[in-house]
Amino acid sequence: MPAAKQELNIAMIGHGFMGRAHSNAFQQVGHFFDTPYQLRLKVICGRDRPKLAPMAAQWGWEEVATEWQEVVSRPDIQVVDIATPNALHAPIAIAAAQAGKIVFCEKPLAVSEPEAEAMAKAAGNVANLVWFNYRRVPAIAFARKLIDEGRLGQIFHYRAVYLNQSGNDPSKAGAWRYQRAQAGSGVIGDLLSHVVDLAFFLNGPITELNAMTHTFAPGRDVDDAAVLLVHFANGSIGSFEGSRYGVGCRNRNAFEIHGSGGMLGFNLEDMNRLHFYDATAKPNLQGETSLLINGPDHPYSENFWKPGHPIGYEHTFIATLGDFLSTLANRQGFHPNFDDAVLVHRVLDAVERSGQARRWINLG
Amino acid sequence: MPAAKQELNIAMIGHGFMGRAHSNAFQQVGHFFDTPYQLRLKVICGRDRPKLAPMAAQWGWEEVATEWQEVVSRPDIQVVDIATPNALHAPIAIAAAQAGKIVFCEKPLAVSEPEAEAMAKAAGNVANLVWFNYRRVPAIAFARKLIDEGRLGQIFHYRAVYLNQSGNDPSKAGAWRYQRAQAGSGVIGDLLSHVVDLAFFLNGPITELNAMTHTFAPGRDVDDAAVLLVHFANGSIGSFEGSRYGVGCRNRNAFEIHGSGGMLGFNLEDMNRLHFYDATAKPNLQGETSLLINGPDHPYSENFWKPGHPIGYEHTFIATLGDFLSTLANRQGFHPNFDDAVLVHRVLDAVERSGQARRWINLG
Amino acid sequence: MPAAKQELNIAMIGHGFMGRAHSNAFQQVGHFFDTPYQLRLKVICGRDRPKLAPMAAQWGWEEVATEWQEVVSRPDIQVVDIATPNALHAPIAIAAAQAGKIVFCEKPLAVSEPEAEAMAKAAGNVANLVWFNYRRVPAIAFARKLIDEGRLGQIFHYRAVYLNQSGNDPSKAGAWRYQRAQAGSGVIGDLLSHVVDLAFFLNGPITELNAMTHTFAPGRDVDDAAVLLVHFANGSIGSFEGSRYGVGCRNRNAFEIHGSGGMLGFNLEDMNRLHFYDATAKPNLQGETSLLINGPDHPYSENFWKPGHPIGYEHTFIATLGDFLSTLANRQGFHPNFDDAVLVHRVLDAVERSGQARRWINLG
Amino acid sequence: MPAAKQELNIAMIGHGFMGRAHSNAFQQVGHFFDTPYQLRLKVICGRDRPKLAPMAAQWGWEEVATEWQEVVSRPDIQVVDIATPNALHAPIAIAAAQAGKIVFCEKPLAVSEPEAEAMAKAAGNVANLVWFNYRRVPAIAFARKLIDEGRLGQIFHYRAVYLNQSGNDPSKAGAWRYQRAQAGSGVIGDLLSHVVDLAFFLNGPITELNAMTHTFAPGRDVDDAAVLLVHFANGSIGSFEGSRYGVGCRNRNAFEIHGSGGMLGFNLEDMNRLHFYDATAKPNLQGETSLLINGPDHPYSENFWKPGHPIGYEHTFIATLGDFLSTLANRQGFHPNFDDAVLVHRVLDAVERSGQARRWINLG
Repeated sequence: MPAAKQELNIAMIGHGFMGRAHSNAFQQVGHFFDTPYQLRLKVICGRDRPKLAPMAAQWGWEEVATEWQEVVSRPDIQVVDIATPNALHAPIAIAAAQAGKIVFCEKPLAVSEPEAEAMAKAAGNVANLVWFNYRRVPAIAFARKLIDEGRLGQIFHYRAVYLNQSGNDPSKAGAWRYQRAQAGSGVIGDLLSHVVDLAFFLNGPITELNAMTHTFAPGRDVDDAAVLLVHFANGSIGSFEGSRYGVGCRNRNAFEIHGSGGMLGFNLEDMNRLHFYDATAKPNLQGETSLLINGPDHPYSENFWKPGHPIGYEHTFIATLGDFLSTLANRQGFHPNFDDAVLVHRVLDAVERSGQARRWINLG
Repeated sequence: MPAAKQELNIAMIGHGFMGRAHSNAFQQVGHFFDTPYQLRLKVICGRDRPKLAPMAAQWGWEEVATEWQEVVSRPDIQVVDIATPNALHAPIAIAAAQAGKIVFCEKPLAVSEPEAEAMAKAAGNVANLVWFNYRRVPAIAFARKLIDEGRLGQIFHYRAVYLNQSGNDPSKAGAWRYQRAQAGSGVIGDLLSHVVDLAFFLNGPITELNAMTHTFAPGRDVDDAAVLLVHFANGSIGSFEGSRYGVGCRNRNAFEIHGSGGMLGFNLEDMNRLHFYDATAKPNLQGETSLLINGPDHPYSENFWKPGHPIGYEHTFIATLGDFLSTLANRQGFHPNFDDAVLVHRVLDAVERSGQARRWINLG
Repeated sequence: MPAAKQELNIAMIGHGFMGRAHSNAFQQVGHFFDTPYQLRLKVICGRDRPKLAPMAAQWGWEEVATEWQEVVSRPDIQVVDIATPNALHAPIAIAAAQAGKIVFCEKPLAVSEPEAEAMAKAAGNVANLVWFNYRRVPAIAFARKLIDEGRLGQIFHYRAVYLNQSGNDPSKAGAWRYQRAQAGSGVIGDLLSHVVDLAFFLNGPITELNAMTHTFAPGRDVDDAAVLLVHFANGSIGSFEGSRYGVGCRNRNAFEIHGSGGMLGFNLEDMNRLHFYDATAKPNLQGETSLLINGPDHPYSENFWKPGHPIGYEHTFIATLGDFLSTLANRQGFHPNFDDAVLVHRVLDAVERSGQARRWINLG
Repeated sequence: MPAAKQELNIAMIGHGFMGRAHSNAFQQVGHFFDTPYQLRLKVICGRDRPKLAPMAAQWGWEEVATEWQEVVSRPDIQVVDIATPNALHAPIAIAAAQAGKIVFCEKPLAVSEPEAEAMAKAAGNVANLVWFNYRRVPAIAFARKLIDEGRLGQIFHYRAVYLNQSGNDPSKAGAWRYQRAQAGSGVIGDLLSHVVDLAFFLNGPITELNAMTHTFAPGRDVDDAAVLLVHFANGSIGSFEGSRYGVGCRNRNAFEIHGSGGMLGFNLEDMNRLHFYDATAKPNLQGETSLLINGPDHPYSENFWKPGHPIGYEHTFIATLGDFLSTLANRQGFHPNFDDAVLVHRVLDAVERSGQARRWINLG
């Protein structure tokens, strides 16, 4: 008989697309990860009450609520999960942390670096997580493993883009993501934040950057595109690009890394694959190998399906949560947390400033 | 307030890999499909009691049981789901149907065509489903839509393979899938059955076939590979291949269809993509288009995530179940059902006989 | 100072597309291969005089002629190259061989196996070559090398197709290739002959086959498609397909080979690449590697351009000729020659007979 | 009878890899292009006499010479072709132009912008050509056609790289390309010059840029990598990258262009293909189409082989020369010429200066 599990009651603030992805992770984590916790979807909170009830019914939330201020301090809640527009992240997270809750927060953590720092400070004593879910794409976790093993040797180049075509779609123009007051920035917080987090994860700290930012849509007060040059602490150089005008790309979160030992390439649109060029192979057998990263011996392949059976987008959230619960049980630190997100914001803020000032910014 | 849902209590017999996939579908269908039923994972049944408890705990089955004969007639059960080795499908399904239960059965339905017919006959008065889950890969459902719209014109060629490398793996040699007594056949029932079901779904009835069957492993009493030539009722010709010695292929369930209007291509290893060549385009713009089939306007794209966000293997089970529940509510017939599987078995039996007799077999 | 080269005067019969490819090879071989011969494009012969002169001028043929009977016995000619419709191959080749000339002949060598045998007999005492040019695609020559090195281990499956869409194009219906009297067969001689030659080259003799042949176009007296099952002498099984109704394929001459050691894949449309799956690699690093086969250390990479610089279709003819001249200088046997083509025709005839008789044919 | 052709006697200075590619173009252009000129490979000139004779014999040069100063003024020479290390381009080209010769010059035209300007000035009265051969890759010519037809709509992003791994190869470290005195620059002149020329060709003038340049190899006095941000006159933004440390890339000269109407993508390693995403197609049929650009109705498809038959690297030189001869006969201006190359050098010099000064440089 398995030991009784410890219940963790969750309150989720927000009920949009991210709310669905989080709800799914809460429901699914126990099916794929062996965890001592029993997650209970206690309350879902949002301002649009008519939408809340069906969402709660669909995903198994026990209660609905409309005032996050009340929810975050409820004594029966252990975890507050934030899936709101960006501008609300800080007040909710700070209140939840001050109430001693475990805090999960969607990315970007904040609308500015100072705000992120305030959040990290407030959350200093509670376990916390930022949903930079792509670190847990099995192919990306495996890329990190190959790098850690030294298979890429000295890194020369890191090149990453996150491109979609949402900016070119007039039907989306009114959404909160396109308004500075609610989003803080445009593509920088929305897409480039993922690029920056993965760059930290795979290639370490950035020492300086030089950015070009651009808004294509007339009258829009946020950035539609950002392209930047970067120097990394490990001596490699790179470029990042985020754009909502990458017409032809549905969800291209992609990177390539070149080192003395080989190359790695990834694209989220084909997330079950990692491309690896082994420059230490015999010259006439060197080429790009398309690895299906769903086993065997791949990250999370014991958790999900069998080799050759693709997994989808939502598993990145499930694996993030599975790893978090494991660190929680073991009293280890989890990454990426609020402190990691502060580092990302430090870069994002530098991107904005560099784009405006049109010059290199040191992050040393 | 949504109307109260009708409960459907499920008993699942079997607890292997397929048991996990089915459990997941039962847990997830309500999150992605709007259904009037509330599925309840009532009892999981299997012979290996030590493994049952953790499986039940992990996937939320309320009870465990070891005697399927008792389970299938329990009055509190409405649905019996069969995920056992093939040789047990018939007795369980027949007993469940005779007890008036809705019956779900893994593929291949039976170990022979006569057995399949007996099962279909027994299930004539109950709603039933065979887990030929790949019809609900969104890309395959979309292929069917393009064909139905006439975009491929007159079909000339249908070419399909299902290849993996399991036969070449000595560690798997003892599993039930490699023994005739439990599996009925080798690759024919295991992999070729999917090929045949998809061919029916996409290209209609087969009128005759000519097969070569082969066993590579010494002493094995089931087929490792089957390759066959086929004529379809629509005038097209084709070839099918199933092999467990397709070294280099993890899970290549793939097809290509050529018609006067173009070509379609699919591979399960990249299940979010469909390849479409439009032969009606301007000659200098004709080429193979790699479509990401996760929206917009694609089958099930409203159910799952947003465009560009890949889905995985398990969603084919969820969508199969979602569609089944919809037909159940609307009192419509569901496909593929036991009768459809009889047609598949008619082909599979012909493959075995043709391989032995080394001649064409008419299926007209 | 290099030694003076021995002149070889060439007479080419035929002036269509193949005449261009051959002319190019004659002009180019000395630029890429170190050969003791100086090829001289002496006379081009054809029945369409108005087209001959510009062709001769464009490709540097010194003379034009319209009677092949006169040309093949001219004492100043050392090499007769045949690029006519198939039905003329035999009379020209036999006459040329009887006149003691070196004979080059386009594929298929003949319109039937007996005719091919008569040609081989007549050419028994002269150096000869059949333009099965694809053996010299560097990627295919490299595939052969990997197989010879044992990297694929025991071969299980050989799967090959040659597909184009010419049959579906009404503008081509009147061409000689679609008429039995001139071509001998349809897709069998035209495309399937290449498949069979490559199968011999890569996987050895075929012991039996079972074919389905089909004509889609009403009133056409040759086959449009042929699909067959084969057993090889090495114990592997396979399937071949040739079709002119492979809509969506421009020139897909492709194969896949699975063995205990891995998989190889090739497609002529991307002729600079070979796909290799190494099943002896660490399990989590096994995948399909896309090798650019234009160096380093690849077949012919010293002859042509630098690594990474693609070569095109015509280089397969140049390399065939370069190798032939090398064997000629060294008094070695060249392959594929007329005897090799007889073996191919033995298979092609069996395909026709099997398709008609609808049964296995032994080639033991 | 075709009219007698006008002879053009060529002197080529240089005999390395580029000398081979040029020689091939001179020999082949008449086979693929209908031109009123008869090219005669009169004299090949270089400093390494032992290597000259075999090169001349292999490629059909009538004479060898070692003093370019004598060659460029010979009255029997009409065309001087320069394929030497970069530092020699200017003196040879200026002398040849002053002697009234037609001048062909390898890229980069010069070792600096002022030198390029001097060359362009000297060549103001003679027909001239710079071997930016990639404009004549059929796929790139077709990309230009699609852009000219407006199929990409308003251009948003232009992203281009030229990556190889030569810098990581110690065996090449001593070559002239790695020494400032002979090459003028490193990757900037060698690879980035192609990127810049194609950007002009496909997307028009650059108004400002901001570059990061880097040398990985200790002690090397030229740049190994350059990455830059650019603004184009048409309002689009972009990034360029050139690197000799792009380990894993053999010859990746690649670009992607995103516009309101779609996307284009190209990679020289697969030069017979162009990727086109048509954003005006039905949403559920939008995807990346892989076009084989060797016919029908593609640039140069009437010149070379039949649809589906790949062409190789050398055809880009042949087509450049074919087009040049056509403009020469028709007394039209040819592009890219020395004036076009001056514009490229203006950008290249700005890249060097921006890299050093670490700031935006205006090119308005």
